[in-house]
Amino acid sequence: MIVGKVDHVGIAVEDITEAGRLYQLLGMALQVEETHQSEGVKIAFYGAEEGLVELLEPSVDSGPIAKYLETHGGGIHHVAIAVDNLEETLSDCEAEGREVAGGIRLGARGRRVAFIHPKCANGVLVELVEVEPT
Amino acid sequence: MIVGKVDHVGIAVEDITEAGRLYQLLGMALQVEETHQSEGVKIAFYGAEEGLVELLEPSVDSGPIAKYLETHGGGIHHVAIAVDNLEETLSDCEAEGREVAGGIRLGARGRRVAFIHPKCANGVLVELVEVEPT
Repeated sequence: MIVGKVDHVGIAVEDITEAGRLYQLLGMALQVEETHQSEGVKIAFYGAEEGLVELLEPSVDSGPIAKYLETHGGGIHHVAIAVDNLEETLSDCEAEGREVAGGIRLGARGRRVAFIHPKCANGVLVELVEVEPT
Repeated sequence: MIVGKVDHVGIAVEDITEAGRLYQLLGMALQVEETHQSEGVKIAFYGAEEGLVELLEPSVDSGPIAKYLETHGGGIHHVAIAVDNLEETLSDCEAEGREVAGGIRLGARGRRVAFIHPKCANGVLVELVEVEPT
């Protein structure tokens, strides 16, 4: 995997299957489907390699995606950037006063991830995804 | 270029240089800078290959990005998907009743682009970027 590029774009949707039809129409293949009950979310990745759209549908009435939909409606929720060393990158961010929201956790596709708070990233929720560099 | 994947993520920012510092910190190299006076926008692409972040700063007080910032503040403005035949893809979209906003135009990096209206794409402004398939 190439680091220093967009890994995926997270999109909050009411219906993952209905929303997926557009991305299939645009030539993006369904790659992975997962449900994360602890986060209250069903996930489907569409695309190729690391240039993916991640559709996020609430699996329960609470949880961050359910709350996001309630407040904002459907839309782009976050952008994820591929990095090769999560601890080092987070340390660089914190040294600049950029707040890491919630620490390192296990995210979709079994990857280690962390989030930079939108207030420290020009209004954007930025996910960092650790990948093996090629 | 591989089609059927995310080409770039467009992010509306107040200050393209200040915003760019985060993406440089995350290992994303500055690829291209452009100003499009007709659209009232300064653009900087960060990243590698087609997995790019496109920062969009208003170059004048009017124009779509200035209006977006006024209404929403800084944040993710659109996601762009690489396709190999714009006419064919738009025809497929229109056949499904998905409205194309404004037709085909010349976008950043001299690429042919078109936009699907957010009301036909689960609240997301989806850009289609025509690339040469590899």
